[in-house]
Amino acid sequence: MDIEALVEGVLSGGTRPISRAISAVENGAPESFELLKRLFPHSGKAQLVGITGPPGAGKSTLTDRLVRLLRESGKSVGVIAVDPTSPFSGGAILGDRVRMSEHFNDPGVYIRSMATRGALGGVSRGTHDAVIILEASGKDVVIIETVGVGQDEIDIVNTAHTSAVVLVPGMGDEVQMIKAGILEIGDLFVINKADRQGVKRLETELEMMLDMAPKEDGWRPPVVKTIATEGSGVAEFSDALERHRRFLKENDLGKQKEIKRCRHRIMELWKEIAMERLLPSLMEETELHEAAERMALREAEPYSLMESLTARLGNN
Amino acid sequence: MDIEALVEGVLSGGTRPISRAISAVENGAPESFELLKRLFPHSGKAQLVGITGPPGAGKSTLTDRLVRLLRESGKSVGVIAVDPTSPFSGGAILGDRVRMSEHFNDPGVYIRSMATRGALGGVSRGTHDAVIILEASGKDVVIIETVGVGQDEIDIVNTAHTSAVVLVPGMGDEVQMIKAGILEIGDLFVINKADRQGVKRLETELEMMLDMAPKEDGWRPPVVKTIATEGSGVAEFSDALERHRRFLKENDLGKQKEIKRCRHRIMELWKEIAMERLLPSLMEETELHEAAERMALREAEPYSLMESLTARLGNN
Repeated sequence: MDIEALVEGVLSGGTRPISRAISAVENGAPESFELLKRLFPHSGKAQLVGITGPPGAGKSTLTDRLVRLLRESGKSVGVIAVDPTSPFSGGAILGDRVRMSEHFNDPGVYIRSMATRGALGGVSRGTHDAVIILEASGKDVVIIETVGVGQDEIDIVNTAHTSAVVLVPGMGDEVQMIKAGILEIGDLFVINKADRQGVKRLETELEMMLDMAPKEDGWRPPVVKTIATEGSGVAEFSDALERHRRFLKENDLGKQKEIKRCRHRIMELWKEIAMERLLPSLMEETELHEAAERMALREAEPYSLMESLTARLGNN
Repeated sequence: MDIEALVEGVLSGGTRPISRAISAVENGAPESFELLKRLFPHSGKAQLVGITGPPGAGKSTLTDRLVRLLRESGKSVGVIAVDPTSPFSGGAILGDRVRMSEHFNDPGVYIRSMATRGALGGVSRGTHDAVIILEASGKDVVIIETVGVGQDEIDIVNTAHTSAVVLVPGMGDEVQMIKAGILEIGDLFVINKADRQGVKRLETELEMMLDMAPKEDGWRPPVVKTIATEGSGVAEFSDALERHRRFLKENDLGKQKEIKRCRHRIMELWKEIAMERLLPSLMEETELHEAAERMALREAEPYSLMESLTARLGNN
C-alpha cells in the first residue's frame, strides 16, 4: 500500500481512496496505524451527527432525506451506517450499494455500511477510525447511523456531537423508553412515521419526561415529527441539528465534549490493542483452544490463566 | 471479606451470599477473582436460557411467567436481567425489587438486575460471572434476559445454551428483522402479545425465513405464540426450551457450545484485565487526561500513544 498516495487521495476527498482507507482500518491492515497517524491531524472540523433508534424506526430513510437536504444547501456529507454483524456470516447484512446508488455521481456524498463485530463488542472497530477518515476527507457533516437500542446508543454519545433518537408511535410505553435509557442519550428526538396512530400520546409523554429530567448542560432536547418516506419534517429535523450545533458553540461545550470523545477513543484503541496484538503475542491459538477445552470440562478456571498472562507480559 | 464463608454460602444456595458475591464481581472487588476461582468448578450444570428482543416486547413478563412455571415443576431458577446503563447515573434504571417481591419468600428463585457498562462495552462485566455464581448456587435453570437489539443479542449467543428471541406484531417488516440479524441468533422465536393485529403475517414471514435459512447444526427453531400478561402459550414456550435442550444433548452439541462459551469468556476476561489493570498500571489518570486534551486540540494523535504504551509493557 502506498500510504503517501492514499493520504493524499483521502485529503483531496476522492471516493476511491476513502473506500480503500476505510477498508484498511476495518480489516486491521498493518499500515492502518500509519495511515491514521497522518490523517488524524486533519480531522476535527466536521459536524458529527448520530442517528439511532430501534429497528424499523426508519433511520435509513430519514438519513437519506437529510443527506439530500444537506446537499441542496451545498454541504458535503459522509455517512457511516453501523449494521449488526451476523454472528455466522461475519459481515454486515445490508450493503451500501443500494443506498449509494442515488448519489453515485455526486462526489460530495460518501455512504458506507460497517458491521459491528461479535467478538470484540461495542461499535465496530473501524467505525471511529472511519469517522476520522471522512473528517479528513473534508466532509462538512458526518452522520453515524446505528441500528438497535443498547450499547450502540451509549457509544454514539461518545462519538457524535449531536445525537438524534428516532422513535415511532406504538412501539412501547414510557416505562420501556426510560428502561432503554434513551432519554439521556438524545440531544433531539424524532417521532418518525408521524402519520401513524399514537403520535400525540408519544409526543406528550416524551415532552413530559424531557421536562422532568433536565440535561446537565442546560439544553432542552426538542421533539421533531417526521414522515421520512414523504420527506415531511426533515427540514425541521435539520434545523434542530443546527440549533444544537450553535448551542454547543455558544456555550463553549464543544471542547469538553471533544476531550471526552478523545478519552473514550484512547480506551477503545487500547482494548483493540489488547485483543489483537497483546493476547496473540502472549498465547498461541493452540494454547487458547486447549484452555477453553479444559475450562469446558471444569478442569481449569480462567481466572488463574489471566494471572499467568499478566505475569508473562513483564517477561516478554 | 471472608471468602471461605461466602463460597460456602453460595454453594448452599443462600440468597444473601449470592447477592454479596454478585455485588463483589460487579464492583470489581479485589477478592472477586479468588471467589470465582473457587466457585467456577461448581458451575456448568444449569440450563442457561437467553431471552432477548426489542424494548416493549414483553420480555420481563414472559420471564416472570416462565419462572412461575419452572417453580411449579420443582426447578430452582436464577434470573439475570441486563438493563442498559444510564450513561449519566451509571446504574441500571429499573431495579429488581419490584420483580423480586413475588418470590420474596421462595429460596428457589433468585432475580437480579445488572447494568450494562457504558465505558467497557458489551454485556456487563459482571454478567458472565453472575451466571457462574448462580450455577454454583445449584440453580437448575439460569435465565439471562437482555433488553435491546444489537451487540447484546450476539453476546447472548455465546453465553446461553438456548436463546429465545421475543418479537411482537407490528414492530417492523421482514427486512428490518434480517437487518437486525435476529434470525441467526434465535434457537426459538416467541411472538408475544399474540392477540394483536398482524400476528399471522409476522408468523408466516418468520416461518418462511426460518425455512430458507437452515441452521448449521440442523435445528429448526420453532415459533411459539404467547400472551405473557395472561400466561397463555407459556407452557409451549417452556416445552420448546426443553426440546432444544434435549436436541443439544442427543446430538452431543453441548460440549462444542461450551468450549465456544469458554473461549469467549477468556477473551472477555482479557479485555477486562487490559482495561482495569494493565492500562492503569501503564498510565496515570493525569497522563490519560492530558493525552485526551492534546488529542482534542489535534496536537497529538492516539496511535503513537498506543505504540508507546505497548513499549512500556516490556519495561514494567
